[in-house]
Amino acid sequence: MTRLNACGMNDMSENIGFFFNPDSIAVIGASQAYGKLSNVLLRSLKKRFKGSIYPVNPKYNSINGLKCYTGVKAIEGGVDIAVLIVPSNAVIQALKDAADAGIKGAIVISAGFKETGKSGSLMEDEIKGIVNGHGIRVIGPNCMGIYDSFSGVDTFFIPEERLERPEKGGLSIVSQSGSFAVSIMDTLAMEGIGLARIVNYGNRVDVGESDLLEFLADDDNTKVVALYIEAVQDGKRFVDAAKRCSEKKPVIAIKVGRHEAGANAAKSHTGAIAGRYEIYRAAFKKAGIIEVSGYDELLDACKVFSMQRPANLSPVSSTGQALQDLSRDGKKVFILTDGGGVGVSLTDLCIEMGLDVIALPEDAKNNLSQKLPSFCSIANPIDLTGSVTDNDYKIALEEGLKYSDIAIVAALWGPPGLTDKLVYNIKEVSKRLNKPVIICSPGGRFTQEKKKLFEENGLPVFATPEDAVRAAGLLANKL
Amino acid sequence: MTRLNACGMNDMSENIGFFFNPDSIAVIGASQAYGKLSNVLLRSLKKRFKGSIYPVNPKYNSINGLKCYTGVKAIEGGVDIAVLIVPSNAVIQALKDAADAGIKGAIVISAGFKETGKSGSLMEDEIKGIVNGHGIRVIGPNCMGIYDSFSGVDTFFIPEERLERPEKGGLSIVSQSGSFAVSIMDTLAMEGIGLARIVNYGNRVDVGESDLLEFLADDDNTKVVALYIEAVQDGKRFVDAAKRCSEKKPVIAIKVGRHEAGANAAKSHTGAIAGRYEIYRAAFKKAGIIEVSGYDELLDACKVFSMQRPANLSPVSSTGQALQDLSRDGKKVFILTDGGGVGVSLTDLCIEMGLDVIALPEDAKNNLSQKLPSFCSIANPIDLTGSVTDNDYKIALEEGLKYSDIAIVAALWGPPGLTDKLVYNIKEVSKRLNKPVIICSPGGRFTQEKKKLFEENGLPVFATPEDAVRAAGLLANKL
Repeated sequence: MTRLNACGMNDMSENIGFFFNPDSIAVIGASQAYGKLSNVLLRSLKKRFKGSIYPVNPKYNSINGLKCYTGVKAIEGGVDIAVLIVPSNAVIQALKDAADAGIKGAIVISAGFKETGKSGSLMEDEIKGIVNGHGIRVIGPNCMGIYDSFSGVDTFFIPEERLERPEKGGLSIVSQSGSFAVSIMDTLAMEGIGLARIVNYGNRVDVGESDLLEFLADDDNTKVVALYIEAVQDGKRFVDAAKRCSEKKPVIAIKVGRHEAGANAAKSHTGAIAGRYEIYRAAFKKAGIIEVSGYDELLDACKVFSMQRPANLSPVSSTGQALQDLSRDGKKVFILTDGGGVGVSLTDLCIEMGLDVIALPEDAKNNLSQKLPSFCSIANPIDLTGSVTDNDYKIALEEGLKYSDIAIVAALWGPPGLTDKLVYNIKEVSKRLNKPVIICSPGGRFTQEKKKLFEENGLPVFATPEDAVRAAGLLANKL
Repeated sequence: MTRLNACGMNDMSENIGFFFNPDSIAVIGASQAYGKLSNVLLRSLKKRFKGSIYPVNPKYNSINGLKCYTGVKAIEGGVDIAVLIVPSNAVIQALKDAADAGIKGAIVISAGFKETGKSGSLMEDEIKGIVNGHGIRVIGPNCMGIYDSFSGVDTFFIPEERLERPEKGGLSIVSQSGSFAVSIMDTLAMEGIGLARIVNYGNRVDVGESDLLEFLADDDNTKVVALYIEAVQDGKRFVDAAKRCSEKKPVIAIKVGRHEAGANAAKSHTGAIAGRYEIYRAAFKKAGIIEVSGYDELLDACKVFSMQRPANLSPVSSTGQALQDLSRDGKKVFILTDGGGVGVSLTDLCIEMGLDVIALPEDAKNNLSQKLPSFCSIANPIDLTGSVTDNDYKIALEEGLKYSDIAIVAALWGPPGLTDKLVYNIKEVSKRLNKPVIICSPGGRFTQEKKKLFEENGLPVFATPEDAVRAAGLLANKL
C-alpha cells in the first residue's frame, strides 16, 4: 500500500521529539466526570507531567483544579501538543482547530475510524489531509498514545490501580497494539523493569514505527528498543530506520498476524494489512533486529538487555571501553548450580540453543577440587549440592568465568548455607571479570524475595531453565 | 543395565502404599541441633504427620518433645517406615537394624553413594543385598523422599520459610531430581495449585518410577501424574506401568539429559545413565504419556489438568457422565478478548499449534451483532474492546462455545467496565455448557489479584498467549 503521507511527512518534519518533551499539553474533550476516560487521562497527566496542562471543553470552567478552556485558540501563550479524546465525528474539527492554533502535534485517542469500516476510513483520509496541509503531526487515532517516565507525558487512560506505571529505565517500546502496550507496561512495573518511553500509535495515519525508530535511535534515555509489529507501513524506510537504531542499541521485535486468520484479526483490530511473514523475517534480519516469537520471549529480552551487556564483547579497549564485536557470538557458557537436576536441564537447553557448554581445563578442575568440598561435582555444570555456601559459589564462578563468555547460575534457595551474601558475591565477580551472569531461580515466595535482591543488583533472574537459556542465547547473539 | 532387584522386587511386594500412609515413622539420625537437616525434617514431620513419630539417636533422651530411642529395636509396638538421615557409612547398619525390626520401608535421605564414585556404588550394592534378602523396600539414597499432603508424611528437609508446602490437590509428582522436586513444589504452593504426593527417589536402589506409577494408577487421591525423568530403570516395565496409569488419568512427563553433555551431568548427579532420547520419545508415546519439553510447559500442564478436563469429551452419556473420546482431538477453538492485539497473537499461536480457529456461522454472527455494541469486532477472535462489560463477555462466550470444543478468554483488566462478576459469568457459562475455558491474562498486580479469583473458581489463568495456547493444545490432545 502506498500512503500519501509516507515520504511527505518525513521531509516536512523529521523530529517528533516534541511529543515526548512538551512544555504544555492541551487535553481536548476533558471531562469533569470522575469515571470518564478523559478524566482518568487528565488525572494521570496531572500527577506526573511537570509542564502546563490545559483542559479544553466548552462545558466547564475548571476540571480537577485546572482552568478549563472553551477552545485551543483561547489558551494564552500557545501549546506544544494536544491530546484529542472526543467522539470520532468531532475529531476532524478539533484537529483543524489545533493546527490553526499552531500546535505541533496531536495524539488522537478517539476510536471509530478505519477499524470500523468505510466511513471511518474516509475520516482518516481527512486527517491525513490536515496533516499534509498544516504540518501538524498526528499519533493515532484509536490509540493509547504515550507514556514517558522521564517527562511525565501519560495519555494511557487507565487508572493506576489497574495499570501500574513502570519506573524510569533504559527500555523504550513501540507497539501497534494498545492491549499489548498496556499488558507489558503493567508487567514491567510489577517486575521492576524500568521504562523510558512507550508509544502505541493505533491506526497510524501519520506517525508510525519508522518515525519512532528514528527518534529513539538518537534518544539518550533509550538504551534498548522493543517493537510490537502487526504491519509496517513502508518497508524500505522501516529497514533503514531500524538499521540505524540497531547499530546504536539492541532492537528487539515481535511480529504478530503471522498467519491468514491472525492477519484478518489484525485488520479488524487496527485496520493494518499484516503482509507475508517471510518478508518480515528477512527485513528484520537485514535491519539487525533481534526477532522473538512470543510475549514471554519479548519480556525475557527486555529484561536481559536492560540489565546485562551482550556476551560478544571484545576485551576492554585502550580507551577503557569494552566494545561489542559483532563477528563473535560469545557462546561459551559456564553453568553453576546447587541443584543437580536443574544443571542437567540447563545443559540440555544450552546445547539445543547452540551455546557451547565448554569443558573446564584440567588446571581449573584441579584448582577447584582443592578449594571446594569433596562432595561437589566439578565439571560443567558444577553442582555444589545442598551443602553449598555463599563462598563456594564465589570460588566456582570466578574459576568458570575465566574460560567462558557468560555464566548461568542456577541458585536454588533451599540450602541453609545460602544467604543474601550470595547475591553480592556473584555481583562482585561478574563486575570484576566484566562478564554477564544470568540467574536461574525457580521457586516460590522465598525465591521471589531473593529475585528482587538479585535484580536490584543488576543480575537478571529467570524462573525457568528455558527462560534463562533463552536470555543467554540473546546475549550470545544465538537466538 | 540389568538390576538384580528389577523384577524380584515387583514379585516380592507390589504394594508400596505403606510409604504414603504409615501409622508410625522412625527418624534414624534425628538431632537436637536446630539448624541440622535431621532436626528440620523432624519438625516438618511433627507439624503435619498425625501418626506416631520415633526419633532414634543414642545421644539423646528426647528431641523436640518426642521421646528419643537408642535404636529401632527399642521402639515398642513396631514401626511402619524409617527415615535414615545418618552419614553414608552408617546407612548399611541402620538399614539392617530396620529390616531386623520388621520395618516395611526405609527412605534413605543420606547422600554419598553412587553419585560420588566407586566406593559409593559398592555401598549401594550392599543396600540392594539387604533389600533382596530382607524384603524391606527402600526409597533413595541421596533423595528428598516424600511429601504427602493427605497423610502428612514429609521428609523434605527444608524449612517451610524456604520451601512452602502445597495444599491438598489432585496432582502427584515423581521426580528423579531433588532440586526439581523442591522447585516445583515451592512454585505450586505459590501458585495455589494443590498436590497429593510428590516423591524424589534420587539414586533409586529399589523403588523407582515404575513402582510409583503402579501405586499412583490406583491411588484415588491422584487425578494427574507428572514425571521428571533422567533415565528409567526398566523400559518395558515402565511402559506397562505408565500405560496402565495413563488409561486412568493424564500422565505428563519431561525427559532431561537429552544430549550427551546433559546426560553426563545427570550421571554425576544421580548416577543415572540417561540413554538415547529418541527411545524415550517412542516409549512415552507408546505409554500414552504427554511429553512436555520444559519446566514451564510442565507447570502449565500441571495447572491445566488440575483444573480442567480434556476438550475431546463426547457429549454427556446416558449415565450423565461425559466420556473422553480418544478418537477425537477437540481442537475447535473460540477466542474472546477485550484487547485486539492479544487476540491476534492467540490466533497466530493456535494455528501454529494445529488448533482450529473456527469461523462462526452467519447465524451466530447475526445473533451477536444484535446483542453486542456496534464497536465490537465479531468474528473469531471476538474483540469486545476497551468499552466491554461483564455481560458482553457472557453473551459472546455462550454463543462462541456452542460451536467450539474449547474457549480461550483473554481478559485484560484495563477496561473500567470489568468487575469480579466477569469471573462468575465465565464460570457459569463454562459449567453450564460443560466445556473447558482457559484464561489468558497478561499484566501486573491488579491482574494477579483477579488471577487468584479466577483460579479459586476453577478457571486456569496463564500470563502469556504462548502459555494459554499451550494449555489449550494440551486439553485438545494436540501437543
